[in-house]
Amino acid sequence: MLSAAVIGASGFTGLELIRLLSQHPKVKKLLVVTRYNNKHFSSDFFESISKIVDLDFTNLEALNSTNCDVVFFATPHGVAMKKTQYLLDLGIKVIDLSADFRLRNHNHFFKWYGIEHTNKEMLVESVYGLPELNRKKIKTSSLIAMPGCYPTAVILGFYPLLKSGIINSCNLIADCKSGVSGAGKSLKKENMFSEVSDNFKPYGMNGHRHWPEILQELQSVANGREKQDAHRDDIGLIFSPHLLPVMRGIQATLYCQLKESYTNFDVQGLFEKTYLSEPFVYIMSEGDCPETASVKGSNNVKISVRKTKKSINVDIDSLVIYVVIDNLVKGASGQAVQVMNIMFNMGEELGLSQIPLAV
Amino acid sequence: MLSAAVIGASGFTGLELIRLLSQHPKVKKLLVVTRYNNKHFSSDFFESISKIVDLDFTNLEALNSTNCDVVFFATPHGVAMKKTQYLLDLGIKVIDLSADFRLRNHNHFFKWYGIEHTNKEMLVESVYGLPELNRKKIKTSSLIAMPGCYPTAVILGFYPLLKSGIINSCNLIADCKSGVSGAGKSLKKENMFSEVSDNFKPYGMNGHRHWPEILQELQSVANGREKQDAHRDDIGLIFSPHLLPVMRGIQATLYCQLKESYTNFDVQGLFEKTYLSEPFVYIMSEGDCPETASVKGSNNVKISVRKTKKSINVDIDSLVIYVVIDNLVKGASGQAVQVMNIMFNMGEELGLSQIPLAV
Amino acid sequence: MLSAAVIGASGFTGLELIRLLSQHPKVKKLLVVTRYNNKHFSSDFFESISKIVDLDFTNLEALNSTNCDVVFFATPHGVAMKKTQYLLDLGIKVIDLSADFRLRNHNHFFKWYGIEHTNKEMLVESVYGLPELNRKKIKTSSLIAMPGCYPTAVILGFYPLLKSGIINSCNLIADCKSGVSGAGKSLKKENMFSEVSDNFKPYGMNGHRHWPEILQELQSVANGREKQDAHRDDIGLIFSPHLLPVMRGIQATLYCQLKESYTNFDVQGLFEKTYLSEPFVYIMSEGDCPETASVKGSNNVKISVRKTKKSINVDIDSLVIYVVIDNLVKGASGQAVQVMNIMFNMGEELGLSQIPLAV
Amino acid sequence: MLSAAVIGASGFTGLELIRLLSQHPKVKKLLVVTRYNNKHFSSDFFESISKIVDLDFTNLEALNSTNCDVVFFATPHGVAMKKTQYLLDLGIKVIDLSADFRLRNHNHFFKWYGIEHTNKEMLVESVYGLPELNRKKIKTSSLIAMPGCYPTAVILGFYPLLKSGIINSCNLIADCKSGVSGAGKSLKKENMFSEVSDNFKPYGMNGHRHWPEILQELQSVANGREKQDAHRDDIGLIFSPHLLPVMRGIQATLYCQLKESYTNFDVQGLFEKTYLSEPFVYIMSEGDCPETASVKGSNNVKISVRKTKKSINVDIDSLVIYVVIDNLVKGASGQAVQVMNIMFNMGEELGLSQIPLAV
Repeated sequence: MLSAAVIGASGFTGLELIRLLSQHPKVKKLLVVTRYNNKHFSSDFFESISKIVDLDFTNLEALNSTNCDVVFFATPHGVAMKKTQYLLDLGIKVIDLSADFRLRNHNHFFKWYGIEHTNKEMLVESVYGLPELNRKKIKTSSLIAMPGCYPTAVILGFYPLLKSGIINSCNLIADCKSGVSGAGKSLKKENMFSEVSDNFKPYGMNGHRHWPEILQELQSVANGREKQDAHRDDIGLIFSPHLLPVMRGIQATLYCQLKESYTNFDVQGLFEKTYLSEPFVYIMSEGDCPETASVKGSNNVKISVRKTKKSINVDIDSLVIYVVIDNLVKGASGQAVQVMNIMFNMGEELGLSQIPLAV
Repeated sequence: MLSAAVIGASGFTGLELIRLLSQHPKVKKLLVVTRYNNKHFSSDFFESISKIVDLDFTNLEALNSTNCDVVFFATPHGVAMKKTQYLLDLGIKVIDLSADFRLRNHNHFFKWYGIEHTNKEMLVESVYGLPELNRKKIKTSSLIAMPGCYPTAVILGFYPLLKSGIINSCNLIADCKSGVSGAGKSLKKENMFSEVSDNFKPYGMNGHRHWPEILQELQSVANGREKQDAHRDDIGLIFSPHLLPVMRGIQATLYCQLKESYTNFDVQGLFEKTYLSEPFVYIMSEGDCPETASVKGSNNVKISVRKTKKSINVDIDSLVIYVVIDNLVKGASGQAVQVMNIMFNMGEELGLSQIPLAV
Repeated sequence: MLSAAVIGASGFTGLELIRLLSQHPKVKKLLVVTRYNNKHFSSDFFESISKIVDLDFTNLEALNSTNCDVVFFATPHGVAMKKTQYLLDLGIKVIDLSADFRLRNHNHFFKWYGIEHTNKEMLVESVYGLPELNRKKIKTSSLIAMPGCYPTAVILGFYPLLKSGIINSCNLIADCKSGVSGAGKSLKKENMFSEVSDNFKPYGMNGHRHWPEILQELQSVANGREKQDAHRDDIGLIFSPHLLPVMRGIQATLYCQLKESYTNFDVQGLFEKTYLSEPFVYIMSEGDCPETASVKGSNNVKISVRKTKKSINVDIDSLVIYVVIDNLVKGASGQAVQVMNIMFNMGEELGLSQIPLAV
Repeated sequence: MLSAAVIGASGFTGLELIRLLSQHPKVKKLLVVTRYNNKHFSSDFFESISKIVDLDFTNLEALNSTNCDVVFFATPHGVAMKKTQYLLDLGIKVIDLSADFRLRNHNHFFKWYGIEHTNKEMLVESVYGLPELNRKKIKTSSLIAMPGCYPTAVILGFYPLLKSGIINSCNLIADCKSGVSGAGKSLKKENMFSEVSDNFKPYGMNGHRHWPEILQELQSVANGREKQDAHRDDIGLIFSPHLLPVMRGIQATLYCQLKESYTNFDVQGLFEKTYLSEPFVYIMSEGDCPETASVKGSNNVKISVRKTKKSINVDIDSLVIYVVIDNLVKGASGQAVQVMNIMFNMGEELGLSQIPLAV
């Protein structure tokens, strides 16, 4: 039985962590750290679960290895990097849902997040918490940097292809669409109903922080693969995020080109084989394509892949990959619970068997 | 003063034609052909306009050059190609919003629409009704094939680049998102509220009929341009449509690569110059990006273009172009009215000055 | 451990039953009867749960007391009344989510549903499955008629007031708003995205079948209460349903008048006391009001009540009661599971502790 | 030809005034006063209309009878009452869309708006700008207090009944639902997409400012009618507002009781006759009911009325009236333009013939 703490419980990912952890069969104590007072916080959201779980409002300073096994940071960036070492020293494991430990290069971190990193050592030692790629490392690590929502979808879509080396890696495109919850709870014009409702728009015209994160991880996959051909696989990627008029869900449409010698490759088989034993990844049948509603509220990933050609009289040489996740579950809090299950040697699906609320 | 007839008035584009034509200052008689009876049709939608315009329910057979100057087909494909010659022989001009005259090659038509074309001569003689490209031809033609909604957005986005020859034309990508009205009014599962609401999904996994249409027109632009370089510009295009949980609006995100010698080209200037005197095309300032709500109910097109690079340490070599239109207006009925204005030598903006219903 | 069967598994309430029963800790076998073939059915919705529960496609004829303890009818009206006796005779308990056993008077049933009832005896013997009113009877019954979604919300809102006799019962008003899932899955114009989206409308201008059901049950409450005053409490109720542009959720705004001697009555206290030990009913603090999102996906009911006056210079004499439920859960399948828990003497909250998916 | 000024041009009603006035055939100059700078304001919304109308950014102090015939206040309450006298003295007519001149009793104004009224004289002299009731007075007045959005819908629904004296006026109920634009543009939690989307809720638990306004005007109707019966008609009204997950539209469901001697009265005929010559009011056929989408973007009002009974074996004695308007058009800016047309003796429908954007 575990005792878990959520720091930053009032944001979307914090609330989602509580939703999931409060029903986790192995979590018997749930500690909650939030800047809101308990009464307001509970009445707003948690009156209905207070009976189910022993929800305990506390401070970060009150945590220790006796009352807490694992801490989840669901805070804005800049918080976790200051408090993590303190918790690790107490023997508490840390799962950070913020961006603080995602970019291994601290110069990149500074460039994209505008603050100097204060724990550069752990930046390198932390493990990127994508179970489908890093399950073994997660098992033995004490500090996990949880992937961003877009990176989760994009990396899982390109992973089988880059690992097997059958595509040109320098020319990838990720056209992504996200529900509004991805932008967090802050009170700004972009999150108003009048701006989002009955509307659709691109954003991040000047670059999005998830772009260097995706590049870093795809490069790592490309570097790690068996070198079948001479030339190095440098990753080139255009990433375009768009805002959907829904609360939950990320859909990624990925484009890439098959290397010439692989145009007849059984790509469908490759995806099915790669994810065969993954508990949350579903490869759709050929001709089907995934929709965001089909994973709503669940930790599932759905992927389909199709071969296509670029003009009427030429051969097939391109791929389009479609990925959907719930950005708050597999894209954030659900994946963090999955990681916790792995770190504590529990069944990986524990507490994550929610059926999607498809309608 | 004109008398205009709408054939197929009960579909989305038919109703939108009536909305626009009934307020057009030069259309004094509006004839309506529909399979629904007048009473039901009017009470459902037109009680509020019956006082404004002389709405006259009739049959196609009752039309002649005395009572009708121009006919709009807002019918399913396969109807216009059978009736067009008859109307042209009567001296009535024809603006076809269906797909019947879009593909110049009748084999392609057969392949994508599954029926033998019955008027192959006019297939070649008809003019593709995109004013920004074909204004002169439209002026003197009697049969206009109106572009599909996706093609309107995609072609206008790539046009300045292909015409000036600064991009690799063999590697274009069009990731497009459409409101539900694009799928028409038919009673099928895909159009149910339960399927579309709070959801987002790709479709057309096995190819979409607008793909060959876009290819044909982009190829025509590429062929027509001043030959600055030796090799022919063959168009290669991946087209991926997606379904948005809104009624109106198309957003296209277009990807392409600058030819090596043009990476410093003033692309923003190119777009501004190309569309300088176009009444309905707005090029957004650098850093801005267009949203579907901003054109809702209007005939406007909004476009922005950004240069981007594919990895951290390389030069800029790619472009992302964003286009939005209202699929029922600039993507269908509004553009058809614009074409009518051109054909009859009237002010091109007549009846099309609706302010977008942005909220 | 129970084995349960769902007849009519492909409708909204059927699917919701499977979502809930497949995660119920005491349901180890889940039998499914549907007109769709297993493959299509599973791929569409159930690929993700097939691993979790032993989902077994079968026919009604294959059921018996050895392989099945309880049958849920999630069928259109007219089906359950024909098959119920057969199942009861086999010793299988029946929970009917259709309307077949809701109206005790078979003339009323004929009037409102247009078919002759074929099992009039059980019509009288069946128990109306609203646990908050009929828990004891449910415990010992073999046939439960589950309440409609609107009746669940309206009856729970008026119940404390009618039971205590403090309001004029002849002048009740229920202004109700429902998500689209309440209309079922059938392919009709009213359920199209184009009809419902960005829209709001009343319906049922000529009477709604839930009206006589609500009248019957409210009358029963009024008849059963301690007779504090001489005159009989005849129920008078206007019921107006409206359609919301969302999938899930019912909101009821109820209006009534306090009897003159009760204008100072502690109504807030009455509601709190009435529902004190109810596991799923939450009475909100004074000044708060419930919203549909706060119960989405859960079996919870949220109620608030406010006293009001009708003009500036008069005394308070009226009440407005607000009720929200998820129509597919507390309004249908969740309440059916709650009833099953009661019938089989299990913890009433088993399998129903889902946290609302508030965003 | 008129010159009109809009004060407070950046709010929803201000923008809507510009949308309507910029296409009004008799408004040749449109002056705009806003706290935003012209560039930002224009690029955000008005780039597309700047070519159509002579849009002129100015200050209130620069207005005079030479450059301005009429001023529209689209400001928060408290602004118009301070500036109105100054404008009237200059000979400029004033149409106030804020609440400043709606409540004739300054004590009521203080109670509901929390500020002392600074122009009590004009509070009494101003005319309530509901053309269907006050057309004659509007014609000759220089200061019009435009009705609130809810009051417009509720008053038009009860008006024929109160004027003819056939209902009990002490027991009226108005259950109203509004799109989010009714709450204005301010950046508050209640207007966030996460709060409103896929949700429905009541609000105003402690009273809504439109309640005393509706009471005042309904009382005025009741007082003014031919006294057919002895006792005075005191208005009693419960008003409950709710928030719809859409931007535009108000739907009101109104409940009242027929006086005993009028249960056979031809109510449908009464409504049809009352509004026979009204250009914007549509009485629907019996059995039909109006939806918000059918008036979107237009100045239309749609009303239906049905007789109903309260229990199975009693006579019909009650009425339910359904009203829909677009809250930004007939509920605000469109009605203000209608009023301007009346004040300046122009065709009442000028500039208001927009066809509803029904999809």
